[in-house]
Amino acid sequence: MLKAAIVGATGIVGQQFLVALNKHPWISIAALAASERSAGRSYREAITDPKSGALRWFCEEPPVEEVMELPVQNAIEMDTDGINLIFSAVESEQAKILEPAFAAKMPVISTASAFRYETDVPVLIPGVNSEHARLIEKQRKGRRWQGFITTQPNCTTTGLAITLKPIYQNFGIRAVVMTSMQSLSGAGRSPGVLGLDIIDNVIPFIVGEEEKVQRATQKILGALERGSISPAAFNVSCTCTRVNVKEGHTEAVFVSTAEKCSVEDVIKAMKKYASVLSDSGLPSAPQQMIVIHDDPFRPQPRLDRTTEDGMATVVGRVRPDGVLPNGIKYVLVSHNTKMGAAKGAVLVAELLIKEGYIR
Amino acid sequence: MLKAAIVGATGIVGQQFLVALNKHPWISIAALAASERSAGRSYREAITDPKSGALRWFCEEPPVEEVMELPVQNAIEMDTDGINLIFSAVESEQAKILEPAFAAKMPVISTASAFRYETDVPVLIPGVNSEHARLIEKQRKGRRWQGFITTQPNCTTTGLAITLKPIYQNFGIRAVVMTSMQSLSGAGRSPGVLGLDIIDNVIPFIVGEEEKVQRATQKILGALERGSISPAAFNVSCTCTRVNVKEGHTEAVFVSTAEKCSVEDVIKAMKKYASVLSDSGLPSAPQQMIVIHDDPFRPQPRLDRTTEDGMATVVGRVRPDGVLPNGIKYVLVSHNTKMGAAKGAVLVAELLIKEGYIR
Amino acid sequence: MLKAAIVGATGIVGQQFLVALNKHPWISIAALAASERSAGRSYREAITDPKSGALRWFCEEPPVEEVMELPVQNAIEMDTDGINLIFSAVESEQAKILEPAFAAKMPVISTASAFRYETDVPVLIPGVNSEHARLIEKQRKGRRWQGFITTQPNCTTTGLAITLKPIYQNFGIRAVVMTSMQSLSGAGRSPGVLGLDIIDNVIPFIVGEEEKVQRATQKILGALERGSISPAAFNVSCTCTRVNVKEGHTEAVFVSTAEKCSVEDVIKAMKKYASVLSDSGLPSAPQQMIVIHDDPFRPQPRLDRTTEDGMATVVGRVRPDGVLPNGIKYVLVSHNTKMGAAKGAVLVAELLIKEGYIR
Amino acid sequence: MLKAAIVGATGIVGQQFLVALNKHPWISIAALAASERSAGRSYREAITDPKSGALRWFCEEPPVEEVMELPVQNAIEMDTDGINLIFSAVESEQAKILEPAFAAKMPVISTASAFRYETDVPVLIPGVNSEHARLIEKQRKGRRWQGFITTQPNCTTTGLAITLKPIYQNFGIRAVVMTSMQSLSGAGRSPGVLGLDIIDNVIPFIVGEEEKVQRATQKILGALERGSISPAAFNVSCTCTRVNVKEGHTEAVFVSTAEKCSVEDVIKAMKKYASVLSDSGLPSAPQQMIVIHDDPFRPQPRLDRTTEDGMATVVGRVRPDGVLPNGIKYVLVSHNTKMGAAKGAVLVAELLIKEGYIR
Repeated sequence: MLKAAIVGATGIVGQQFLVALNKHPWISIAALAASERSAGRSYREAITDPKSGALRWFCEEPPVEEVMELPVQNAIEMDTDGINLIFSAVESEQAKILEPAFAAKMPVISTASAFRYETDVPVLIPGVNSEHARLIEKQRKGRRWQGFITTQPNCTTTGLAITLKPIYQNFGIRAVVMTSMQSLSGAGRSPGVLGLDIIDNVIPFIVGEEEKVQRATQKILGALERGSISPAAFNVSCTCTRVNVKEGHTEAVFVSTAEKCSVEDVIKAMKKYASVLSDSGLPSAPQQMIVIHDDPFRPQPRLDRTTEDGMATVVGRVRPDGVLPNGIKYVLVSHNTKMGAAKGAVLVAELLIKEGYIR
Repeated sequence: MLKAAIVGATGIVGQQFLVALNKHPWISIAALAASERSAGRSYREAITDPKSGALRWFCEEPPVEEVMELPVQNAIEMDTDGINLIFSAVESEQAKILEPAFAAKMPVISTASAFRYETDVPVLIPGVNSEHARLIEKQRKGRRWQGFITTQPNCTTTGLAITLKPIYQNFGIRAVVMTSMQSLSGAGRSPGVLGLDIIDNVIPFIVGEEEKVQRATQKILGALERGSISPAAFNVSCTCTRVNVKEGHTEAVFVSTAEKCSVEDVIKAMKKYASVLSDSGLPSAPQQMIVIHDDPFRPQPRLDRTTEDGMATVVGRVRPDGVLPNGIKYVLVSHNTKMGAAKGAVLVAELLIKEGYIR
Repeated sequence: MLKAAIVGATGIVGQQFLVALNKHPWISIAALAASERSAGRSYREAITDPKSGALRWFCEEPPVEEVMELPVQNAIEMDTDGINLIFSAVESEQAKILEPAFAAKMPVISTASAFRYETDVPVLIPGVNSEHARLIEKQRKGRRWQGFITTQPNCTTTGLAITLKPIYQNFGIRAVVMTSMQSLSGAGRSPGVLGLDIIDNVIPFIVGEEEKVQRATQKILGALERGSISPAAFNVSCTCTRVNVKEGHTEAVFVSTAEKCSVEDVIKAMKKYASVLSDSGLPSAPQQMIVIHDDPFRPQPRLDRTTEDGMATVVGRVRPDGVLPNGIKYVLVSHNTKMGAAKGAVLVAELLIKEGYIR
Repeated sequence: MLKAAIVGATGIVGQQFLVALNKHPWISIAALAASERSAGRSYREAITDPKSGALRWFCEEPPVEEVMELPVQNAIEMDTDGINLIFSAVESEQAKILEPAFAAKMPVISTASAFRYETDVPVLIPGVNSEHARLIEKQRKGRRWQGFITTQPNCTTTGLAITLKPIYQNFGIRAVVMTSMQSLSGAGRSPGVLGLDIIDNVIPFIVGEEEKVQRATQKILGALERGSISPAAFNVSCTCTRVNVKEGHTEAVFVSTAEKCSVEDVIKAMKKYASVLSDSGLPSAPQQMIVIHDDPFRPQPRLDRTTEDGMATVVGRVRPDGVLPNGIKYVLVSHNTKMGAAKGAVLVAELLIKEGYIR
């Protein structure tokens, strides 16, 4: 069993890590860290609202009893003795300071965006660009670290990159147009989206999101050549909106492929690709990376987000586009706080353990 | 004052006609018709739930007291003596039978889709394609009718066609990609969308909608030449979804223009175009057909749908697209049951009165 | 294994029966029946929308593959050879005709209200009034049936009766005041509550509901004496409202007890009572009938409805009332389509199997 | 014209004051104050989000152009020369410091709870307890202030006290049981209720709310005798919950009256009372304080909250209770940010101007 520390353990993503690692066969939770405010208390105390006595536990799954009495350390002074890897769930500003300090000594799997666009840091989705893990070697050498940092794409990119992968591989891609209808949990809790702002409403803008999707998609689908990633040579234009859905991002995708291909070709390619991780032996991997529905009323976020415990991207309405050259369009639903966040990061850790980068 | 009959008066669109015509300066409501079931009762009785005694009145505005005691006639036998025009708010199947029978004698302004794609029937949006009204002459001759039928676009097309008009006029259009986030009122009440289906959800499909948008947009922006309409020569590819919003359709639009144009050019063209009806003297016309926001968080359906009493299309986030040739993208909100339905149809009637087609 | 038929199998409650009986250790699904319209087709065909090809499957759980190819019979002509019991999920009007016909030959467990208030028909909640099952003997004799009918309370009554039971038993009850905030699934699908009626809203009336709660609560907590039930001698006054929640009824309960008792006394009595079925061996029984929260922000329908797979009633905010004599107040959440409907009915069947009424 | 300053002008209640005083016939807005952070900037600058450039304007009504260029002063140093009255919309902690400082010199109408329960400070609802204004004289003498402080009830109490008033006056009251279903706007914006917490949910607890309702109701309906208020001698037991409604509190009320009275008696008393302010000449007063519906499906917050621009309390479902002695029950909807907040406070100012307390 490898021993993991979770940094940023009291926040919403930190709690999702606790759930994603609960009874994990390869990794045990050995340390928890958060800001100075929480330090010195048990995890239970740290997440108890002092006024009402209520637990500030934000996952649908029940609190993980095994860690409730673990002490919470001050992240910046965390004792890393005996720790094999770190899951970092802190905000970007803190990540800039904390993550390099930890990476000097050990592997850091981060959900923050701080290092996502560094040329020697991979944005990993196992099964999509597992080979980018090799960038870690360059990173270690260049930065003289014993450890390393790997990052996750932002949650809106995850489902998009997964579904584009088999299209890109088989037919090439010229351009992608996408409109997202993103869930409330994607905005987190500080400050998050107020109920009175989203009720009976759509909010047509999410700060910084559209740029991230283009940049991260190109990097993830890029080729690792001679130690660096050449971004995939197509643009992604998107409009990112927020809708009144708790969990699960919905995306209407329009793709212009390089080679002509039919709807059946695309479906076939997606289905073939879907099993890329089924024999991987990675405990958090979905049997099917992509699940395709015939029913034109699917995917729906409420019905489909938990497919394969939120690790599958669910696709429907694959059909010709009629406007873009070799145009194909479809709708996807991706679970933004499972595959798109902590559990996706645990899957990355599993891949890196299997590949020998973490031990 | 011209005397109007409303056919389909007990339904949701019929009630919106009552509101849109309430205290109208040119048109008074002289007759109401519905199915045989309601015939012979006062309007109040016809919309009273026999079990609970509650009024089945579906508009946010209060019931129109002036018409509550009018008798409801059986549509198929309606007495049209003294009636100058008919607003038809019936379902498509009934429209196929009722509308030609009325049109033989008098003008029919219809919100149904039954005749929308007939080559001699215009789909009118005043200020966008007012000149298509001339098709009425051909229709009358060809069908030997004293009256005529004009139709409305489906509600998803209205805001799209209005915002594309100044772009098309000034820069030409090669292609349009659009994702709609449509409101619940667009689905009506029979059967409508159940609360338990849309809560915490997005429904990614609306039967027949995507085809309608392409076809109606091309017809509306088409040129009337030698008595017939040549559809505009660009395709519209869309994904139409339903979101948990009461009223107001939101659309993320991506346009490829024929000529290169900047974001500023497009905004300027929209602003210039926006006043097309301001001096028209039509009582229901908006001062501004298009209202543009700088604030990137707008338009939002709840905040913007009632701009100019629901007769303006509200636009925001105009920006370069980066994927389509000469690509521009923006977001619009359009009130689907005001400009997109009954009040839009009243505006059509006003135009046709002014132009002498109705008297 | 006993063989069950499900009548009304294509509706929402019927489908919940399929889920509740899926892989059941004592009962297998041997026959399905619905209206004449569905008869003669496989279950899969019967619930496939002919237009879109989509499955009309309404449960969160996936469709039960084992029954998809079973033929659907016309309920009124169903072949009952080899069937040991019938679960009836039909509307009240049909129940009046169908249920007695079946009950003449075999046990009928019904979720309809048709026979709920007959003096010889029990309204059973295992663990609350299991002893009322003895009324079946009287019913059989009086009606000369080989089988019998038992009924379920309406879903709003279930959680109320369960939580009142330990209070009534220990301290007696003088009066109950209750306001419910009921979920959308409680209104079903025909016609159900429209999204555009419940968005940003509360509907303060549910036809017939308040009378049912009073009557059923009194009957369930009544004493079975000399072959008939004397209703419990306290009144229940309620206001039943509909809120924008998918599943799970929330109820604010105010109880005036006969004997003085403290909040601690009530909590203790509830906790002691809660395990009434834990050793029953009934496969669908919850370990705890009542789960009590200290956190004042609980119970919440979204977080608590699925406690013990929807078979527990979750209670919080137990506190003194200050207005009623010996007043205690609390809030409960009860899963209206699990314990409050099909799975609750399966639990009744299990009790009656164990007690020898069904074999 | 009297000149008013608004303290706490940049917050949500402050903005509601701007709307409520827009084009007011008696009162003009002469000064705006907020925290030091906003001081020295124009109001427009102060509410502009520096990152996105968007206006942080929270009312449905458009921003009040007349005040956008007014300078925002630091509240604690505000220049009160020429100011006739102050509307205070600050948080309770700041109110404790700021309001006495202002009241030493001039009238302060406060929506904060800081002084609500002081024995010499009235909690005023014009038309319910206008005579409590006389307490101001005692307050001024006792505190040696030239000005004074009056307070508003919390928004949940307002509709309750208004509807209880005619019952109390005519029949006396022994006890009140109430369950509220409160709107999101009542929780404000800092931090407010997150969309992801309230979607598909009810939150059964609002910190401190239930105590406030009991205490304020008793004070408002109390008798002013020899310079002090004897609280009304009945208890109010309530359960206050939050539901997914933007605006408008719904309350299910159960009243035990002192004297026997029929439903018709109560309705008659409410209707008679409703016109209490119709001839008052107060510009913000509703024609009818209470509007009663026969339709059992009313009141609904979305449909009824804006009755008389949010200044009327809308009542329905008046019926016998069956549990409480002389029990009557009904449902009310009250607009929590109109009559229940800023516009209600403006109505108080109007009353005090008319009565000569402000000049």
